[in-house]
Amino acid sequence: MSKTLLDQIKQANPIITNVANSVTVDQVANVQNIIGASPIMSSDPEEAPEMVAIAQALSINIGTLSAEPIHQMKTLMAEAYRQAKPVVIDPVAVGSIHYRQKIIDELLALGTPQIIRGNAGEIAYLAGLDWQANGIDAGNGEIDLVKVARTAAKKQQTTILLSGPTDIITDGHHTTKVANGTPLFQVHVGSGDMLTGLCAAFVAVSPDNPYQAAIDAATTFAVAGQLVAEAMPTPLPGSFYPQLLDCLFNITAADVQTHAQVTEVLTHE
Amino acid sequence: MSKTLLDQIKQANPIITNVANSVTVDQVANVQNIIGASPIMSSDPEEAPEMVAIAQALSINIGTLSAEPIHQMKTLMAEAYRQAKPVVIDPVAVGSIHYRQKIIDELLALGTPQIIRGNAGEIAYLAGLDWQANGIDAGNGEIDLVKVARTAAKKQQTTILLSGPTDIITDGHHTTKVANGTPLFQVHVGSGDMLTGLCAAFVAVSPDNPYQAAIDAATTFAVAGQLVAEAMPTPLPGSFYPQLLDCLFNITAADVQTHAQVTEVLTHE
Amino acid sequence: MSKTLLDQIKQANPIITNVANSVTVDQVANVQNIIGASPIMSSDPEEAPEMVAIAQALSINIGTLSAEPIHQMKTLMAEAYRQAKPVVIDPVAVGSIHYRQKIIDELLALGTPQIIRGNAGEIAYLAGLDWQANGIDAGNGEIDLVKVARTAAKKQQTTILLSGPTDIITDGHHTTKVANGTPLFQVHVGSGDMLTGLCAAFVAVSPDNPYQAAIDAATTFAVAGQLVAEAMPTPLPGSFYPQLLDCLFNITAADVQTHAQVTEVLTHE
Repeated sequence: MSKTLLDQIKQANPIITNVANSVTVDQVANVQNIIGASPIMSSDPEEAPEMVAIAQALSINIGTLSAEPIHQMKTLMAEAYRQAKPVVIDPVAVGSIHYRQKIIDELLALGTPQIIRGNAGEIAYLAGLDWQANGIDAGNGEIDLVKVARTAAKKQQTTILLSGPTDIITDGHHTTKVANGTPLFQVHVGSGDMLTGLCAAFVAVSPDNPYQAAIDAATTFAVAGQLVAEAMPTPLPGSFYPQLLDCLFNITAADVQTHAQVTEVLTHE
Repeated sequence: MSKTLLDQIKQANPIITNVANSVTVDQVANVQNIIGASPIMSSDPEEAPEMVAIAQALSINIGTLSAEPIHQMKTLMAEAYRQAKPVVIDPVAVGSIHYRQKIIDELLALGTPQIIRGNAGEIAYLAGLDWQANGIDAGNGEIDLVKVARTAAKKQQTTILLSGPTDIITDGHHTTKVANGTPLFQVHVGSGDMLTGLCAAFVAVSPDNPYQAAIDAATTFAVAGQLVAEAMPTPLPGSFYPQLLDCLFNITAADVQTHAQVTEVLTHE
Repeated sequence: MSKTLLDQIKQANPIITNVANSVTVDQVANVQNIIGASPIMSSDPEEAPEMVAIAQALSINIGTLSAEPIHQMKTLMAEAYRQAKPVVIDPVAVGSIHYRQKIIDELLALGTPQIIRGNAGEIAYLAGLDWQANGIDAGNGEIDLVKVARTAAKKQQTTILLSGPTDIITDGHHTTKVANGTPLFQVHVGSGDMLTGLCAAFVAVSPDNPYQAAIDAATTFAVAGQLVAEAMPTPLPGSFYPQLLDCLFNITAADVQTHAQVTEVLTHE
């Protein structure tokens, strides 16, 4: 865990331009804001160049699609690649909806994002592997998740954050596991979207090292969730979200380091 | 209260495809998820057939209309009727906005939903009865609410859940009252929308008995709200929502049965 | 602090028609509802005349723009001016996005709103003054904020509520400062949007005195935030929002008056 990235966000207050989905847009804005970044949402193609110009990172979530947001995503992404701003993508439900597979393929054809954050079913699609996804849920598969993530990273030439009970971060060469977390993440709609939003905040201050940005984002988020859940006598998924924001606001890089269960995966390939 | 429906949701994790409104979309997603269903939002007509195919129920809320969502609602509903998937409709504000009456008439012309959930003013419109509605609020009327609900059920050939201080569920022949609840439901924007979302989750596992699905959804929701409110020294509508999710996550069919104040309305017609 | 406006809202339950932004729409609805007003969201131009006709005030927030909401804002505003209903505008991010400056200029060309609520960077744009805004955040400037607000009020011929650590309300002639508040307002995304929503609720019952409506809205909101924050051992921005709603629900005009730090700014011009 690099101590500096969280501190750098708090010092630099990077602006993150987001196309969020309509379900969790407020959560993405709040989690970025609480961690020290400055979120802004963009839905009008006419303001796209400016929205990229003022930002230090772009975050794209395909959770609620229609013609207008798709056009907006493409406009912003093209601008971001042109302006060399880091891009984070959340391919919501590409594991189970063919139409979304078509859209994500079109988005990925525009350039190479710095980080893709998804669940096992979503990342399996990006790896070209067979998987039984279930709506927005990860679903089940027989394949080793590290292999799924690494195959996706190599195929997409990017950093993959495959989130789940254990988060796997890989750039195709190096791979890290984050074992922190809580089952409450699965019960709260928006956990994955918030993590994607945090990836954008972390890569905004670490554009040349998206792998480290994804590790730090995942570790910070997972440790915070774990600390909140451990303090609850019984699991309370409704109270979890406000308390998660509370925790993320007060957490320090030192707190994260103390509780982090982060291990590098050694491989011989 | 049939014990099995809540348990069946937790076992089957049915996928619910929703067109929610922009105000309460996250609440609908969270309440479905917490009860054990798997919510997905759909806003692109191009993915409509798939979105219905993967789902066990469709939930349509007309709270925030414009050309695109109206087109999406119609596309999804036509698909759902074609694929014989149960449909739940929430006719937000049809009691007071003529334009919404036109839209709901168009939606109802596409086929017969399994359940319509609304407040007194909204259901009165569907019954063809005179009522003084007030924006999104129920408003006031002089007519017996059981008669309002039953007339609407007969006219629309569907199960009606007229929600309020006492919930009334009727298929036009049988009628049940649920006396549980709390005034905090009225103070929290989204209570009705969440209940509609729950109806979709319950009817997903009970497609042949929407009347029982609506009773169980209403009872589960009303008992949970009542338990949360009773545990508060003073009414706290902001804290109510997270605690309601907490309660719905941990509540069992046995808990619901213990507290349920459910009575069948005997009538001679 | 006029005791009557808060009481009048609770008695009259005015309907507020809103075009909110997608990030904080639920917060705006909840804060209006909790204070005693009846919020409704409008996104379809076809229902615009009705939506204005049933309402006692119109609230316009430009936080998430695209062609459709811009058209909707213009349609509703034209209707509101025609029907002589008070209009409140929140010019989100006009301090830093040139495209939004173009849009707000078009909106302001339709007529004169009763209240404009913004942060320092946004109000500085409306005053025609130079300022370093930063995305949705206020940014920094060297100019006296009372002068910024007063210049904007004179230029736009309206009541300005410039919100920040100290809120400044001015109609260009009279100016009032509200010193209540908490730094947690800055850490919670949606604080400004909620305050705009409250302005609409207060001006709905005080259409002929928007200056007093803005003072009362700002004071009620700032006192509530301060009371919540003061009761916290450490600042908790996630728990802040539900507790703020709790407080706004239970607060009385007498409570507000007891804690209000409101001073008129005396000037010699």
